[in-house]
Amino acid sequence: MKIALLGFGVVGRGVYDLTKDREDISVSKVLCLEDVRLPDAEVTRNFRDIVEDETIDTVVECMGGLHPAFDFVKEAVLAGKNVVTSNKALVANFYDELLPLVKEKGVRFRCTAAVGGGIGWLSELERSRRAQKILSVGGIMNGTCNYILDSMTRLGLGYDEALKQAQSLGYAEAKPATDVEGIDTWHKIILSANIAFGVSLEKESVPVSGIDKIAACDVEQFTAHGYVCKLLSRAEQGEDGIRAFVQPTLVKQGSLEAAVPLNFNLITFTGSASDRMSFYGQGAGRYPTAYNVVQDLVDILAGKGFYSPYGGKVSARNDGEYTYYVRGEAWDGVTEAVWGEGVITGKVSVEAMHTWRKAHPNAFIAALAE
Amino acid sequence: MKIALLGFGVVGRGVYDLTKDREDISVSKVLCLEDVRLPDAEVTRNFRDIVEDETIDTVVECMGGLHPAFDFVKEAVLAGKNVVTSNKALVANFYDELLPLVKEKGVRFRCTAAVGGGIGWLSELERSRRAQKILSVGGIMNGTCNYILDSMTRLGLGYDEALKQAQSLGYAEAKPATDVEGIDTWHKIILSANIAFGVSLEKESVPVSGIDKIAACDVEQFTAHGYVCKLLSRAEQGEDGIRAFVQPTLVKQGSLEAAVPLNFNLITFTGSASDRMSFYGQGAGRYPTAYNVVQDLVDILAGKGFYSPYGGKVSARNDGEYTYYVRGEAWDGVTEAVWGEGVITGKVSVEAMHTWRKAHPNAFIAALAE
Repeated sequence: MKIALLGFGVVGRGVYDLTKDREDISVSKVLCLEDVRLPDAEVTRNFRDIVEDETIDTVVECMGGLHPAFDFVKEAVLAGKNVVTSNKALVANFYDELLPLVKEKGVRFRCTAAVGGGIGWLSELERSRRAQKILSVGGIMNGTCNYILDSMTRLGLGYDEALKQAQSLGYAEAKPATDVEGIDTWHKIILSANIAFGVSLEKESVPVSGIDKIAACDVEQFTAHGYVCKLLSRAEQGEDGIRAFVQPTLVKQGSLEAAVPLNFNLITFTGSASDRMSFYGQGAGRYPTAYNVVQDLVDILAGKGFYSPYGGKVSARNDGEYTYYVRGEAWDGVTEAVWGEGVITGKVSVEAMHTWRKAHPNAFIAALAE
Repeated sequence: MKIALLGFGVVGRGVYDLTKDREDISVSKVLCLEDVRLPDAEVTRNFRDIVEDETIDTVVECMGGLHPAFDFVKEAVLAGKNVVTSNKALVANFYDELLPLVKEKGVRFRCTAAVGGGIGWLSELERSRRAQKILSVGGIMNGTCNYILDSMTRLGLGYDEALKQAQSLGYAEAKPATDVEGIDTWHKIILSANIAFGVSLEKESVPVSGIDKIAACDVEQFTAHGYVCKLLSRAEQGEDGIRAFVQPTLVKQGSLEAAVPLNFNLITFTGSASDRMSFYGQGAGRYPTAYNVVQDLVDILAGKGFYSPYGGKVSARNDGEYTYYVRGEAWDGVTEAVWGEGVITGKVSVEAMHTWRKAHPNAFIAALAE
């Protein structure tokens, strides 16, 4: 299998390294703006050199961003090439446009590294669906947020200090909004739910709340009350529809989620036969991510294309109720308890709470896990 | 695919239920001594009815025990039938006899449910080897021991009380020796190492120590010093050979292993590219175990046989050193600290400590995790 890499950054270089000694996969061209020289692959700045090269079977997109990444991926599919990508924003945003095209062209498309980095999460979901119905998916899907929350909890750091530390270690970007506002996790749960349930979730129907408003005083309260705060995603298939959301969540000290350190991920599904299954590992990083890109390439060689049938559009309904911790703006609903500067609300639906938070942009909210 | 079930107990009945509505797999015969009637499958007490039936492709062994389970499995292989089994003792004991036979006959043989119950551990190891080298495997592989240790730690129960509770919930057998002495975990780590490293480990070279001598006074000390005791297995591929052993291990409070509750399992591999990956789920139970049997059947339909090439015999070397907690018999080596009735030793090799323990059968030992 002759492949072309789009991008030669963290992931692209990793895929190059991991495939160097393989007999079944060889990198023949690399799209890269920098002045890179490789002994066994042609480096080009022109995508046409790749898309018009008939000897290339498969294009591996590891540039990141939406454009031109999506345009290149679309052109590759139209040119009859298989595509592997680790770009969750691309897949989540263009799921509806890409999948029918992939089907029409009869090419293979995989994106395992897009959720969970080194964890073979999407391929495990695919495998699981062969033998049971998936009832729910979710978990800790963003290493940046977990690193920040873990540093605040274990080391007592403030938010800004924890963010700076994450940035200095390369766990957070200079502009961290996509991670800390929960957008990255939101992309991942939408993609996971689409594959788990065989649907195409209306993105706007999935509420998201991030960790960017959390403060040391919140964490002190959580610790004093026996809780640890994590950014959790969740999507569940009910009889009356799909519930899906992303929100900071207070899990009990001593629980598995509470024990997830540093920038690790812990992603869970429950199945009709298997019960709960959780997967723990590196959600990012050169070799873990490249490892799953290589797994996708091996799966394509074995004839495996996209994970699940492309399903129709559905909206999430979010009438499930939680008790919340709220701080930063005056809560105008039922208050059950006061925790320092924050309050514990009565039962509020996910939809109502996220709507309230949007109208109160300085509030930090966190649901209490059941 | 027409299959026959050997045994119709917890797992056999589960496989029957999970395949009832499938179009690709149907149970055509069931070997069962009890008076069971099924609408769509023939129940027989005579194995010959199954092994001589040419319409049956695949035999699913879910009787447990070594004999006649192994004899039936061997006969089925010789008769050219694929075999799926959830019986780890059978596979671990007869690995060397079975695999060459399976290869010679060109049949498929899978045993994913033999380690980890509902966790797709062996199939994930197989998958992982496609894209990297496995460096180590191990973890919490026995739900009975985890349930007992968890009850002692969280509820402060004594050993006998915790065992009785596990028995009353069906998590421990009336004769619990295989579980609490670590034999079940020992079978599982040997099988995991064989598949991870492509070898056949000499069983006698893998030392095992169980939890049957632990007492409430030990757990009190562990808690006071910030540790939680778990029965851990470990096998690692070093440059100079394979290390492999099973022993009670003190992990730090707050670590992922420490957070594993009740009868759950947590099994880990580290890979050259993926780094650490851990898998959490139900290590036993009807539907989780049957789920993985069905996954094996689907894999056999997809043409997948045994996980890794059958490798040659190797002995484990266990010169790796740990600090141990020892209680119950007088420790005659270097003592670094006294914890209640127990002592903390200096660095001792795994081999030396397990040899000492065999000569001191009333001792409880636990290694301190690094």
